[in-house]
Amino acid sequence: MRNLLSLFHKCSVLSKQLPVVCSQYRLSHQLQHWGSNKVHRKIKIPNPLREIIMADPKIEAILAPLRASVKEQGDLVRKLKEEKAPEIDVKKAVAELKARKKVLEDKELALAPSEESFDRAKMEDLIKRRFFYDQSFAIYGGITGQFDFGPMGCALKSNMIQLWRKYFILQEQMLEVDCSILTPEPVLKASGHVERFADLMTKDVKSGECFRLDHLIKAHLQKIKSEKNTKAELKTEIEDILVKLDGMTADEMFVLMKRFDMKSPISGNELTPPIEFNLMFNTQIGPSGLIKGFLRPETAQGIFVNFKRLLEFNQGRLPFAAAQIGNSFRNEISPRSGLLRVREFTMCEIEHFCDSKDHPKFESVKNTKMLLYSADNQEQGRSAELITIGEAVATGMVNNETLGYFMARIHLYLLAVGIEPSKLRFRQHMGNEMAHYACDCWDAECLSSYGWIECVGCADRSAFDLTQHTKATGVRLAAEKKLPAPKQIEVVEAVANKAAIGKAFKKDAKIINDTLAAMDSAALNQLQKNLDTDGEYNLITLNGEFKLSANLVSVKKTEKTVHVEEIIPSVIEPSFGIGRILYCLLEHNFKMRDGDEQRTYFALPPTVAPMKCAVLPLSGNTEFQPFVRELSQELISADVSHKVDDSSGSIGRRYARTDELGVPYAVTVDFDTVKEPHTVTLRERDSMGQVRLPLADVPSVVRDLTNSKVSWSDVEGKYPKFEQQENVKGSAA
Amino acid sequence: MRNLLSLFHKCSVLSKQLPVVCSQYRLSHQLQHWGSNKVHRKIKIPNPLREIIMADPKIEAILAPLRASVKEQGDLVRKLKEEKAPEIDVKKAVAELKARKKVLEDKELALAPSEESFDRAKMEDLIKRRFFYDQSFAIYGGITGQFDFGPMGCALKSNMIQLWRKYFILQEQMLEVDCSILTPEPVLKASGHVERFADLMTKDVKSGECFRLDHLIKAHLQKIKSEKNTKAELKTEIEDILVKLDGMTADEMFVLMKRFDMKSPISGNELTPPIEFNLMFNTQIGPSGLIKGFLRPETAQGIFVNFKRLLEFNQGRLPFAAAQIGNSFRNEISPRSGLLRVREFTMCEIEHFCDSKDHPKFESVKNTKMLLYSADNQEQGRSAELITIGEAVATGMVNNETLGYFMARIHLYLLAVGIEPSKLRFRQHMGNEMAHYACDCWDAECLSSYGWIECVGCADRSAFDLTQHTKATGVRLAAEKKLPAPKQIEVVEAVANKAAIGKAFKKDAKIINDTLAAMDSAALNQLQKNLDTDGEYNLITLNGEFKLSANLVSVKKTEKTVHVEEIIPSVIEPSFGIGRILYCLLEHNFKMRDGDEQRTYFALPPTVAPMKCAVLPLSGNTEFQPFVRELSQELISADVSHKVDDSSGSIGRRYARTDELGVPYAVTVDFDTVKEPHTVTLRERDSMGQVRLPLADVPSVVRDLTNSKVSWSDVEGKYPKFEQQENVKGSAA
Repeated sequence: MRNLLSLFHKCSVLSKQLPVVCSQYRLSHQLQHWGSNKVHRKIKIPNPLREIIMADPKIEAILAPLRASVKEQGDLVRKLKEEKAPEIDVKKAVAELKARKKVLEDKELALAPSEESFDRAKMEDLIKRRFFYDQSFAIYGGITGQFDFGPMGCALKSNMIQLWRKYFILQEQMLEVDCSILTPEPVLKASGHVERFADLMTKDVKSGECFRLDHLIKAHLQKIKSEKNTKAELKTEIEDILVKLDGMTADEMFVLMKRFDMKSPISGNELTPPIEFNLMFNTQIGPSGLIKGFLRPETAQGIFVNFKRLLEFNQGRLPFAAAQIGNSFRNEISPRSGLLRVREFTMCEIEHFCDSKDHPKFESVKNTKMLLYSADNQEQGRSAELITIGEAVATGMVNNETLGYFMARIHLYLLAVGIEPSKLRFRQHMGNEMAHYACDCWDAECLSSYGWIECVGCADRSAFDLTQHTKATGVRLAAEKKLPAPKQIEVVEAVANKAAIGKAFKKDAKIINDTLAAMDSAALNQLQKNLDTDGEYNLITLNGEFKLSANLVSVKKTEKTVHVEEIIPSVIEPSFGIGRILYCLLEHNFKMRDGDEQRTYFALPPTVAPMKCAVLPLSGNTEFQPFVRELSQELISADVSHKVDDSSGSIGRRYARTDELGVPYAVTVDFDTVKEPHTVTLRERDSMGQVRLPLADVPSVVRDLTNSKVSWSDVEGKYPKFEQQENVKGSAA
Repeated sequence: MRNLLSLFHKCSVLSKQLPVVCSQYRLSHQLQHWGSNKVHRKIKIPNPLREIIMADPKIEAILAPLRASVKEQGDLVRKLKEEKAPEIDVKKAVAELKARKKVLEDKELALAPSEESFDRAKMEDLIKRRFFYDQSFAIYGGITGQFDFGPMGCALKSNMIQLWRKYFILQEQMLEVDCSILTPEPVLKASGHVERFADLMTKDVKSGECFRLDHLIKAHLQKIKSEKNTKAELKTEIEDILVKLDGMTADEMFVLMKRFDMKSPISGNELTPPIEFNLMFNTQIGPSGLIKGFLRPETAQGIFVNFKRLLEFNQGRLPFAAAQIGNSFRNEISPRSGLLRVREFTMCEIEHFCDSKDHPKFESVKNTKMLLYSADNQEQGRSAELITIGEAVATGMVNNETLGYFMARIHLYLLAVGIEPSKLRFRQHMGNEMAHYACDCWDAECLSSYGWIECVGCADRSAFDLTQHTKATGVRLAAEKKLPAPKQIEVVEAVANKAAIGKAFKKDAKIINDTLAAMDSAALNQLQKNLDTDGEYNLITLNGEFKLSANLVSVKKTEKTVHVEEIIPSVIEPSFGIGRILYCLLEHNFKMRDGDEQRTYFALPPTVAPMKCAVLPLSGNTEFQPFVRELSQELISADVSHKVDDSSGSIGRRYARTDELGVPYAVTVDFDTVKEPHTVTLRERDSMGQVRLPLADVPSVVRDLTNSKVSWSDVEGKYPKFEQQENVKGSAA
């Protein structure tokens, strides 16, 4: 069923099944669940960029047959499409292609030279211990798929959002809106979510416990496959089924359930046939219980339903972009993988409405080098390529300048918040992944210990949504464009004999006249045809059908001079999953001090770091207090977020603690501070380098460092180095 | 039923019934509903501050009997309370007191010298036309009580929130969190919301249409009262009923419904008996439909359930404050009054946890003059007083320094976002309004055309919430405080004979031992007593009851030296309704140009104004374009939000348009800009004064102006005045 979701490009971006990358990465089942991460296992994070730049002939020899296997299947898919083969055959071939591609990618990652080791359990321990985020309502037993952000996670998230506002709202002059979360059913019917935003599940007939059907079947078959006495023949067949599972219908899955006699893995009870489960949370708006509503599954629809107001705000002109930052909700059947698949999440979405796909600022980004993994390369078993976005648009790999411009801006934003460049790629959707209306679609994916994670989707949605809402409401969501020269057009309209209609149909006359007035040219042609051949026309209205004879209605064709044409703009939609980006950047910036595994820290960029600086009195000596207070006050005046840590514990231990919080700078007030001229030490987290500077300089220096106005080496150049070893071992208390 | 809500102080703050201030203010029913605001009626906004400062003897003579009437009733209420009269009698007396107080307040406002006139319909027209905000899903017919913020409203709201972060999170070093909206039922059971967060309604038995019961009864009785042939006697009785309506039970209201034969005002159908309607939106979390959840009705509970994590983050020390910014939801039976009573709204809430109510920074605010309306003054028919918060705390009017400190900070924040000082007061809850656990509670109220609106609540909630969640979960939400000196205490505990219990109860032994270990001292005393008298004790566990004889359990008392004591901290809770503040500040800053009623604008403070500056080329001349582009780029680099308006229309008309958006500064590029040295004009919105300055100076000047680093008069002092009349009349196109 998941592929039904491909209709919702951005939805699939943020809820796609998370791949397990390769055998080293395959984590114990427990590890995949937040809260049960006590298994300390090192995970090797490969560096795909390096792999691409320096292709190793030995590795290539191992990969060659896998590449060939992908290419063979890719060619088959193309052939089937060209021959317009039955959809089911294409689907099956695509499922097989994806499976082969996964084998290749897993191998590629496994063979890539490893750069560092990553200990997820250790990082998750730090995240919980320092309350970056943790499970919601834990004292009540907790709910899976819901997280609360503590002071550090909340500040990090809020800084990421502020930077996003700067990159997109301010720099691209977008129109930010803030729309309702509670959404009435008709809106989500029009967008297709009520009908199609669903997963298949099955229920324990006795306990009512629910299982996501594809997960259940997969686990069941893998168990059979791993059993000793399973015949080789059946093993092969199971492998084949697993490959095709993703493309199966509910009926096909039900056949499997019956054939393999599947029961609840928890209780052993019988299971229900497949049930389609809509992923939206529903509720009733108002006290009557009659207005059905949902919590929005994406923020985008709020922008589409406001299109007319926004166009008017932009004085009727295209292009313009609207953006929204807010929470969306999905009632996942089985949330997992920490922040990566959750029930409540913050999105930043942009809808860029345009009539031309050229972009005036494309020139400014065209030399941005990005790792692009085109559909073609995926189908042909080739790797991702490091090329400039200018080249990618010029060669047609990326469909148009506007899409390319946004991809480059997404790339730059992700690097700015701290995503590791070598762990960022843009993957193009292959033909069958893409929604039917989209002409191109690229996901920004970040490499994590869970594999490549879709963090931002960037899709060309064409005019789909505006058209759907226009159909549902009768309100034309379109823009007017001035024609280069006035144009003569033919206008076709129904001419109703209102007096006669009134007489004939009484109270239904109004709806008949309205329906006639709203007919489009195709319907009018049919009307003319029927009047010509049958002498009458069967008009379908909301009040029922009415037979209209030629004396009641006729069709008139006239010429008209028009100066504008109506266009339904195309939409380019970059859609950011903030929680996923936040998780990936935490992984990418989780470090250990050389030779001290216990001393871990987050090397977060100062721009997004939760706090910019720590103020540490060397000891509890009361002489230090007025200086600490004054400095804190001055930092507040300079808008520098900071934390005074005057708890007991050696200065080294307190440095370690601020490192764990990802605080980039630390100021120490010591006995020399008390003397004139008052000076303090300033320490940089990553290098642990220290300088000695006047107390009064601190606020502006830290502010300029965190705004990237000066670099740490500028500061080291300006002030004398302060030499003192940090010789504390072990974790922060 | 509304007064049941008083349990939830902050809830009642943000959902209290909106008073109609006086007869001039009483608006037609239509006017109270957003979207039907076509009635152009001027509303006189009085200036209560002036009234207080210069009490007019003539006015005082009119008010004297009203003041006496309030005092009389206030004295009665006090007497009843002192005598511990039955609760129902106190309630009735309080309802009467409130009614008399309202008559007095209405008269006070009516007689106050009017400062200006305010045209709400005109302002709402501007708000819709420039899309500050508007009804959600309007193209689908819309849903009452839900609003979408357009680019200007969204930017204003976001700037208000950023300033809030600066005032509270940064300057007060608070711990900001971001918790889940979807909340499982047990959490809201413990907080009391499941049981008591309800309004009474009645339904049309045929159509199912719902009415808020107190609104329905009020409208019905007012209609009878206004009818010609209603006898004077009945009129008096109805007046009496209306006064007491607020304090009535469901049964009492049902008696009224039957007595006056009330039917649906829409259909004339029969109505159901009163139904208690919980105002929370419910849904199911997870696919089984078994986990009942609600959309949170306030953000506070997310902080309380994370108390242990936050305390630990603060290294176990008190006091500390946590804060949260986010949306809450209430399924109002009949939303109304635009942004003032809605179903989905943004709150900023602070929970300040403390063990002492002194505040180290109180000194810094103690001279802040505020308009305080104490419970005592309300009960005695006196006016609000303009006094310093220092004096209010010293005299005991405000309970303690911490509460006073927050009130002063709230006051300063509200002035900073643009609330008119003369239209801001703090009103203390009277005894019967306050939740039973609160020791003091003050609401910041803003005067608007809807009357005095509660915008921020500031309550001392004591230890209520932490205690409730401790009871519900068994997790002790308490802090430890170091004692000044070690203390000997008596420890009482149950000593279980585990071997014998194991033998006697087998699999139930564990729960018996756990239950014994968790007994508190009262239970242990009972255990001892029962063992002494009966030789056995009946232990109630989750697995049922068990009889324990004296050979299985005993009670041991020992002396122990302790260095810390456990304390459940008190909570001071300032709770901000952002939408309400936003609405009030729009009203307070809505202006008309002298002598031109069509030229309206928002005189928003630059800090919160949606955009800081407009860039206007004098005409479409292409020579201006490079300068406009360069300036826009430089403004972006300086983080100055702005809008280029190069549409056709005279410069005066475009100034009027930026004025409507509340943009404080406008830069005009004209023919002199093209010449060297390149200069432009800079115009200030409120004074319409203009200066001529070098193009290159603009970004830093506008940035410093909007950050309050320089004032407009500084700028006028530095640069030559630019003299040119703005002689455009009429509204912005």
